[in-house]
Amino acid sequence: MKAVILKNGKICVEEIPVPVPGEKEALIRIVKAGICNTDLELLEGYMDFHGILGHEFVGHVVESSDKEWVGKRVVGEINLSCGQCTTCLEGDPKHCPSREVLGIHRKNGVFAEYVTLPLENLHPLPSTVSDIEGVFVEPLAAALAVFDQIPIDPEDDVLILGDGKLGLLVSQVMRLHSPNIFCVGRHPRKLALLQMKGIQTAQNIHSLSRKFDVVIEATGVPDGIEDALSRVKPTGAIVAKSTFHDLAKVDYSSLVVNEIRLIGSRCGSFAKALEFLEKEPIRVEEMVDAEFSLKDARRAFDRAKDPETIKVLLFP
Amino acid sequence: MKAVILKNGKICVEEIPVPVPGEKEALIRIVKAGICNTDLELLEGYMDFHGILGHEFVGHVVESSDKEWVGKRVVGEINLSCGQCTTCLEGDPKHCPSREVLGIHRKNGVFAEYVTLPLENLHPLPSTVSDIEGVFVEPLAAALAVFDQIPIDPEDDVLILGDGKLGLLVSQVMRLHSPNIFCVGRHPRKLALLQMKGIQTAQNIHSLSRKFDVVIEATGVPDGIEDALSRVKPTGAIVAKSTFHDLAKVDYSSLVVNEIRLIGSRCGSFAKALEFLEKEPIRVEEMVDAEFSLKDARRAFDRAKDPETIKVLLFP
Repeated sequence: MKAVILKNGKICVEEIPVPVPGEKEALIRIVKAGICNTDLELLEGYMDFHGILGHEFVGHVVESSDKEWVGKRVVGEINLSCGQCTTCLEGDPKHCPSREVLGIHRKNGVFAEYVTLPLENLHPLPSTVSDIEGVFVEPLAAALAVFDQIPIDPEDDVLILGDGKLGLLVSQVMRLHSPNIFCVGRHPRKLALLQMKGIQTAQNIHSLSRKFDVVIEATGVPDGIEDALSRVKPTGAIVAKSTFHDLAKVDYSSLVVNEIRLIGSRCGSFAKALEFLEKEPIRVEEMVDAEFSLKDARRAFDRAKDPETIKVLLFP
Repeated sequence: MKAVILKNGKICVEEIPVPVPGEKEALIRIVKAGICNTDLELLEGYMDFHGILGHEFVGHVVESSDKEWVGKRVVGEINLSCGQCTTCLEGDPKHCPSREVLGIHRKNGVFAEYVTLPLENLHPLPSTVSDIEGVFVEPLAAALAVFDQIPIDPEDDVLILGDGKLGLLVSQVMRLHSPNIFCVGRHPRKLALLQMKGIQTAQNIHSLSRKFDVVIEATGVPDGIEDALSRVKPTGAIVAKSTFHDLAKVDYSSLVVNEIRLIGSRCGSFAKALEFLEKEPIRVEEMVDAEFSLKDARRAFDRAKDPETIKVLLFP
C-alpha cells in the first residue's frame, strides 16, 4: 500500500505491506484523512516521531475478528492504552504512560491506504455525518474538551488566541455556548469566517483594551502563553491547547501573583463530538481548502504549511 | 524613626520621619517583623521595589481616627486596594490592578519602628496568639490558600517541593489534612522538623519513583516547575507558590498532553489563619532561628540568606 512516512524530518511516500490486524483489532481502509497542526510540529521534531503520519480520518472496516464491525464506516480515537497499568485501571486510559498514539508516538498513522486500530478505539459514523465531517471528529472533540476541563459561564468573556484549525473550531463551539467570544488571529480570511458567526475578532492583541475571564491559547507557538497571561483577568483561567517542540518562557510570578489557572487540554470525547455534529450548526466543509492524493503528500504538506490555509485533506 | 530601606539593590538603615496616618488609617508601632523569601527576591530586583521592606508583622495601633483601634495588638493584610475599580467592586480587592502592596509595591513596609495601614487591612490578634505566631499569620494564610484553590482529598498523595519557610508551613498544614504528605528539600535540619510530624521527606527528587495527585511548588526558583511537572500524575494539579525576578522555562507541551492544571496561589485569608493558629497544633516558634534589631538589618538579611536558616525576625 501507499504510505506517507516521516523519516529524519522528511516526508517520503513509499509502497509498504498492508498491516495485519491483531486480536481485537480492525483493518481499516482510509477514505479521507486530515493534516493537523500536530503533524506539522512532528516534522519539526516534536515527539521525535518516525513512521506513518496522520491521526484524523474516516475509513471503512475491511477486516476484523469481530465480524459485526466489517463494512462499517468509522472514526477512531488516537490513544492506544495498555489496559493494565494503574492509570488504565483507574479509568484514565488516554493518559496511560505506556500508550501509543496514532501517527504521533510509536504507532503508524492514517496517511496510508490502510491502518489497524483496536476495536475499542472505533466509533461507527452515523449516516447523517459526512466523510469530511468525520475527519473533523478528532479536532472537534479536542475543542469540546474545554468544557470538560473548566466551567464556562455563558456570561464569561472568552478570548481565543489563534485562528488555526483548532482556534477556529474552539471559537465556533464557544460561540454556540456564549455570546461574548473574541478571537485574535493573523489571517483576515480566517477571521472573516468567524465574523460571519457573530464572533468578534482582531489581528493585533495589543488593540484589545480589556481582559477576559477565560483565554483559550491555541496559537501553536511558545509565545502564545505570554499573550494569554497579558489578557486574562486575575483569578481567571487559561486553557492551554498548543503543543510544540520547544520549551515556553512563562512569566511564572505573574501567574502566581494573579492566581491564574493554566489548564492543559488535549483530546476529548469522540461520542460528544459525534453528538455535537448531528445537532449543532457547525459547518466544517467551509474550512477545507484542498484535497490531495497520498502520492502528492509533499504538496499537501506544503499547502498545509501555508499560513493562509485552514485545512488540507488527503485521500488514497 | 529607624527604617530598613531598599535602595538600588542595597539595604540601608536610615533615620526618617514617622509616617502620618490618613483618613481611615492607623499608625502602628511594630513589635516584631519577619523576613520572607519575597524580601530576598526584592533585593534581586523582583518588582523593581524601592522603599522600606517587610510585610510580615505584629504591632500595636498607636494612632487612628477610629479610637476603637488604639492600643490594639494587630496584624495586617498586605494588599491596599483602590476600592473603586471593577475588580474591587466585584469583590476581589486583593487583585485590584492599581493596588499597593505592603513592602513590595509602591507602599512602605514594616521593617521600621512605625507603619501606616488602612483600618480595613487590620485584624486584632487574640490574646492566645503570641507575637511570634502573629508574624506567621501572613505566610500561614498563604499556605492555607491552597485549600481555597484546589479541592484536596484526604486520600490524595501530595508532594511539596521546597523546604523554605513557605514549604515547611504548607507541609505542616497539609499533614493535618491528609496522611500522604511528602516534602522534597535540600536541608536535612529542615526536613527533620517535618519528619517529626509524620511527613515523608527526601533530598533528591530523582530518588522518588512515584507520581503525585497534587504537587505544591514552593522552591522559590525558576527550575521548580520542571521538577513539579516531572512528578505530577496526568490530570493532576500543580499549585504554584514561587515568585522570582526571572521567567521560567516550562515544558508546555507536557502540561497540555498530560492535561495538568497549574494554579497560581498567593495570599490567603488572615481570618482563617488566625482561626487555624488558635485551633491547630502548629508550632511556628521552632522555625525561628534568630531575632535582630533593625539597626542590624544587614546582618539579619545575611542570616536569612543562609540556606540553612528558616526564619529571621526583626524588632525595632
